[in-house]
Amino acid sequence: MRLLVVNVNTTESMTKSIGEQAASVAAPGTEIVALTPEFGADSVEGNYESHLAAIAVMEAVRAYPEPFDAVIQAGYGEHGREGLQELLDVPVVDITEAAATTAQFLGRSYSVVTTLDRAVPLIEDRLALAGLSARCASVRASGMAVLDLERDPAAAVEAIVEEAARAVEQDRAEVICLGCGGMSGLGEKVVERTGVPVVDGVAAAVTIAESLVRLGLRTSKVRTFAPARPKHFKNWPPSN
Amino acid sequence: MRLLVVNVNTTESMTKSIGEQAASVAAPGTEIVALTPEFGADSVEGNYESHLAAIAVMEAVRAYPEPFDAVIQAGYGEHGREGLQELLDVPVVDITEAAATTAQFLGRSYSVVTTLDRAVPLIEDRLALAGLSARCASVRASGMAVLDLERDPAAAVEAIVEEAARAVEQDRAEVICLGCGGMSGLGEKVVERTGVPVVDGVAAAVTIAESLVRLGLRTSKVRTFAPARPKHFKNWPPSN
Amino acid sequence: MRLLVVNVNTTESMTKSIGEQAASVAAPGTEIVALTPEFGADSVEGNYESHLAAIAVMEAVRAYPEPFDAVIQAGYGEHGREGLQELLDVPVVDITEAAATTAQFLGRSYSVVTTLDRAVPLIEDRLALAGLSARCASVRASGMAVLDLERDPAAAVEAIVEEAARAVEQDRAEVICLGCGGMSGLGEKVVERTGVPVVDGVAAAVTIAESLVRLGLRTSKVRTFAPARPKHFKNWPPSN
Amino acid sequence: MRLLVVNVNTTESMTKSIGEQAASVAAPGTEIVALTPEFGADSVEGNYESHLAAIAVMEAVRAYPEPFDAVIQAGYGEHGREGLQELLDVPVVDITEAAATTAQFLGRSYSVVTTLDRAVPLIEDRLALAGLSARCASVRASGMAVLDLERDPAAAVEAIVEEAARAVEQDRAEVICLGCGGMSGLGEKVVERTGVPVVDGVAAAVTIAESLVRLGLRTSKVRTFAPARPKHFKNWPPSN
Amino acid sequence: MRLLVVNVNTTESMTKSIGEQAASVAAPGTEIVALTPEFGADSVEGNYESHLAAIAVMEAVRAYPEPFDAVIQAGYGEHGREGLQELLDVPVVDITEAAATTAQFLGRSYSVVTTLDRAVPLIEDRLALAGLSARCASVRASGMAVLDLERDPAAAVEAIVEEAARAVEQDRAEVICLGCGGMSGLGEKVVERTGVPVVDGVAAAVTIAESLVRLGLRTSKVRTFAPARPKHFKNWPPSN
Amino acid sequence: MRLLVVNVNTTESMTKSIGEQAASVAAPGTEIVALTPEFGADSVEGNYESHLAAIAVMEAVRAYPEPFDAVIQAGYGEHGREGLQELLDVPVVDITEAAATTAQFLGRSYSVVTTLDRAVPLIEDRLALAGLSARCASVRASGMAVLDLERDPAAAVEAIVEEAARAVEQDRAEVICLGCGGMSGLGEKVVERTGVPVVDGVAAAVTIAESLVRLGLRTSKVRTFAPARPKHFKNWPPSN
Repeated sequence: MRLLVVNVNTTESMTKSIGEQAASVAAPGTEIVALTPEFGADSVEGNYESHLAAIAVMEAVRAYPEPFDAVIQAGYGEHGREGLQELLDVPVVDITEAAATTAQFLGRSYSVVTTLDRAVPLIEDRLALAGLSARCASVRASGMAVLDLERDPAAAVEAIVEEAARAVEQDRAEVICLGCGGMSGLGEKVVERTGVPVVDGVAAAVTIAESLVRLGLRTSKVRTFAPARPKHFKNWPPSN
Repeated sequence: MRLLVVNVNTTESMTKSIGEQAASVAAPGTEIVALTPEFGADSVEGNYESHLAAIAVMEAVRAYPEPFDAVIQAGYGEHGREGLQELLDVPVVDITEAAATTAQFLGRSYSVVTTLDRAVPLIEDRLALAGLSARCASVRASGMAVLDLERDPAAAVEAIVEEAARAVEQDRAEVICLGCGGMSGLGEKVVERTGVPVVDGVAAAVTIAESLVRLGLRTSKVRTFAPARPKHFKNWPPSN
Repeated sequence: MRLLVVNVNTTESMTKSIGEQAASVAAPGTEIVALTPEFGADSVEGNYESHLAAIAVMEAVRAYPEPFDAVIQAGYGEHGREGLQELLDVPVVDITEAAATTAQFLGRSYSVVTTLDRAVPLIEDRLALAGLSARCASVRASGMAVLDLERDPAAAVEAIVEEAARAVEQDRAEVICLGCGGMSGLGEKVVERTGVPVVDGVAAAVTIAESLVRLGLRTSKVRTFAPARPKHFKNWPPSN
Repeated sequence: MRLLVVNVNTTESMTKSIGEQAASVAAPGTEIVALTPEFGADSVEGNYESHLAAIAVMEAVRAYPEPFDAVIQAGYGEHGREGLQELLDVPVVDITEAAATTAQFLGRSYSVVTTLDRAVPLIEDRLALAGLSARCASVRASGMAVLDLERDPAAAVEAIVEEAARAVEQDRAEVICLGCGGMSGLGEKVVERTGVPVVDGVAAAVTIAESLVRLGLRTSKVRTFAPARPKHFKNWPPSN
Repeated sequence: MRLLVVNVNTTESMTKSIGEQAASVAAPGTEIVALTPEFGADSVEGNYESHLAAIAVMEAVRAYPEPFDAVIQAGYGEHGREGLQELLDVPVVDITEAAATTAQFLGRSYSVVTTLDRAVPLIEDRLALAGLSARCASVRASGMAVLDLERDPAAAVEAIVEEAARAVEQDRAEVICLGCGGMSGLGEKVVERTGVPVVDGVAAAVTIAESLVRLGLRTSKVRTFAPARPKHFKNWPPSN
Repeated sequence: MRLLVVNVNTTESMTKSIGEQAASVAAPGTEIVALTPEFGADSVEGNYESHLAAIAVMEAVRAYPEPFDAVIQAGYGEHGREGLQELLDVPVVDITEAAATTAQFLGRSYSVVTTLDRAVPLIEDRLALAGLSARCASVRASGMAVLDLERDPAAAVEAIVEEAARAVEQDRAEVICLGCGGMSGLGEKVVERTGVPVVDGVAAAVTIAESLVRLGLRTSKVRTFAPARPKHFKNWPPSN
């Protein structure tokens, strides 16, 4: 099967890293195609960029010329999953929801450790809309920006690990979700420090997407995600 | 003061009608400027168009060359209010939230009567994120599409009035919110049929925006709506 | 239009100060009439006085001989708003709800800073019944009694400002509501210290009441606030 | 021990009937003293009367000259229990809460069947503030006014029994609470018709008050119900 | 009347102490029969033992040869109350729920102080399923194991008292529930230290069971607790 | 990898059918071992049997002599998952939670269609404790007992299909979960009738268990599911 894993920012190196993370856990026979949006910000850390990414991710998927079996939205706490579900019949998996869902099988409560303070409300809203708040102990920011994760991995590891420890000790989290696509690979350090399971959203999303495809399940089209009605679009998609 | 009232679709006649509705309730000295996005769908009735509208509305506001005192997002149940609050210091008022908030001063519970069934989840989500669900008795669809409201007003009135009556009788709503920018003006018929107060989102939003401006209040910038971080944007804004 | 602004205690100087605060934000053409109840406590800081104030405020409004367009209940976290809505057709605005509602347009979450610890449960209950708890970060007490606000304004300012800062830093409030009618005028200091918008309940209530009147909206009379049934009253109203 | 059972209206015959109902379930050695407020409405069926009753009940208790061990507030869905708890050290039991609490020991969910539609919101609010909503299946009105229960008992029984049956069949209630002090004695008919346990609030309150007294428990005075602060009262209590 | 008070562990000395605690508050004419399960762990401090206790308690009650009027499940936060309600017509009272229900009559919020950290989730779940979470300020662990309460009472008292004080000061609890059957008798020390009422679950359960019996109330049999359907059981009950 | 799939009842034919359902969706390389408890009821349709099954399933897993990688608890709405998580380090997947979690990726809301009315509360409780209620539209009973599914499959299909249609049309469910281990294989009929995706709990659980194992994730052992403390057990396990 073929899974599209779509980055939400336009930084190709991050797309590559997400794709590799996805491929590393994919089952034999699963092809991972990592896509970068044609337009948008080099990192997504706020509402403006996230709204832009929502539509850019949809356009990237629409423009992909080959058949595919499922789509993974690889931005943590970003807008747009509902739009993809409306556009597509195949399953759509958001990594925020994939991580939380997976965490819930491993412990009574989970915390998300993300980048900047301003990402916290976005993640909280995404979890609330997905009905995944009840067992969320906290969403905590490490203070590291998305691109810091690539630029200064040692400091990022340190900050994330410490924040995860606070989640376990102060918020009583029993599982940690790494709340940023770019955090893939840091999990081991968090496990060492905290002793609790750590869930990476991209990895979780790959196995969930594979499972849905294998079970022959597709997005329900009866109401919320019914196919879009025909519209006249002005100046869209952009011609540049 | 000057209020920008931004339509979410690209149908100029609807922008005009929204602008007139806004102007009809504005205080003396309030200038209403109605804006139409440069790109997007001729009506917004689903997630794809709504995500596109979110960013189109933001771009329309960014492109507006004169000073202004507040912005009204004139789409019911649409994405994007958070992005506007991040971009701007002046108050931003979403008509879904304006209507619900106003309704809550008039009765114990309110219902929203909207266009199509597929709009219901979008409105429910917006109310949930805004913390306005507790007193929402129901969100009901009349089955009329947005553009039907202009094309066949008689049938639209009939369908909306009947759905409002069901909300009052079956869901125990004590106030009705008209859940579509284009429904302005139909309120009187609903009042006649149901005997309960009817709130129009655009009108409610105008008085709320005026109030916030008059009180000298602006969007809080400490965390969720802190100014965006500097980013490199690829292929954006579109050059067409 | 004429707005009745009703103090909940019998201290005339406080009625005067509330009336001035209301007048200072009223639109041209709005007449503010500040009323003091005929009976009750000199300050309301607990359930007994608050229950007494509920009925005293209703009697004060019933006894007012001239026509009026809306009523503002100017006690923070007090009982009785529902009774006024039942008695009257014109809009009734409680300052606790007015402040919270206004705050919700300015930031993701708000906190209330009030006088004494014992007022906290009353305010929490009022917000809960009004469906305004979801975005309430906290209700915090400054430790200053109502009359201290008049007697020792410097200490009151200090205590309130510090408690507001704690709400912003520890509870992640993005907006502060001043939780006592007598706090009007202290807002500027809180803004200086915290950098977040500060909402005064009386001021917010005036603009909301004006808006409801201007939109021609009145209290829904279908169920909860239907006119009272005819009763025989014993020894009421009091003859003293 | 001596229990004060306080009627919320000024109809002596109803006080008598409540007192008899209480006495019929009291343990040997429990003295029931039924009190009628000195002022207020002959029946309480709305917010104005209920707010008035709140303070009238408090005054009746304050005026009672002998020692007592607990107080029962014998109005269903009325304001004021918090005020009594503030005034007194001895336990205070509201019959709405007593009935719901008792019902929760008997089945998974309970419904309240009350008099008029307008009483429903009052009862819902009381249950919500008491933290007793989670297992409440519904609050239903029989359409019978309070005094109808005395005037036309046959019709009242019929209406209440039918509404109870709807609660069991449509709302999945497993227990019925009779939601009016005056309904005492109708329980048997409801049991016959529905086959589910029926809880009378006055009876439940008597056993709960007795239990609290026997266990030596008293109202917590640390915060919410701390003794009232000294106040100057104007024109209160009334001299008539 | 005869009440069965069933210990959840197989330690006879604890059964005896629970029985004595129950008898000390029972009304004249109430016979307390304390039962020890035939199988299970010597103390219950986790899910495995608690699930085993659930069925062991049911078997103990089924095996009891004499008539009885109500059953008290005397384990704090344990599984199984629903099974007893299904098996029996007479009232079943779980001490966790009895304590919380009683506490709710005494203050705005309550905390539970229990033994080990691992018991906290069990108690939280029990309160959530019973609809008693809304007013629960916290469930706190003292760090003392169940049998420590018998082995080193002085240290147990100290740890419990300190944890209770933290609940009152930090979590704003106004009442404390002693969250372990074996804590009976330590209440006085907690009252001394915190000044708030302390509820013992066994004592509370005895008065509630007596009340239900006296009111002639029995478990509702319409749906959730309808009598079990006939089954073939393999290897059960055990022959040892 | 080896997955233990544990039936909750003692009917071997049902174990076999569950095992076959599991095997039919398992990945290459996954070995399915279906276990039947040594003691308990031939079908589980109530609290008594379910509590017994909880412990019987745990004993079955403890007695299994070979290594294994994850455990699936194959009863819908049954007690006991927490106990397995405490006993084991490997992942434990409950089919109720697996189905709901999977359904949440496919539509905005889901309903469960189960066997008898009395199973509904058990399923609702399980979903509530698992934090999976927010998107649950309803839990509906088809009126067919567990063993009817084997005895009269045609009637069972009919009843289940009709109930599923009601969930979609009346409760606005967008996905259906088949709420009984024995319903495996009926999904196609429900899809035909309703047009919405249908999730089988056993199948969903297999892919989730496989995913957790493949990602190297194990149950968190820090608090709720920490290893049991050493105990003395009396008369357990049973010697028969």
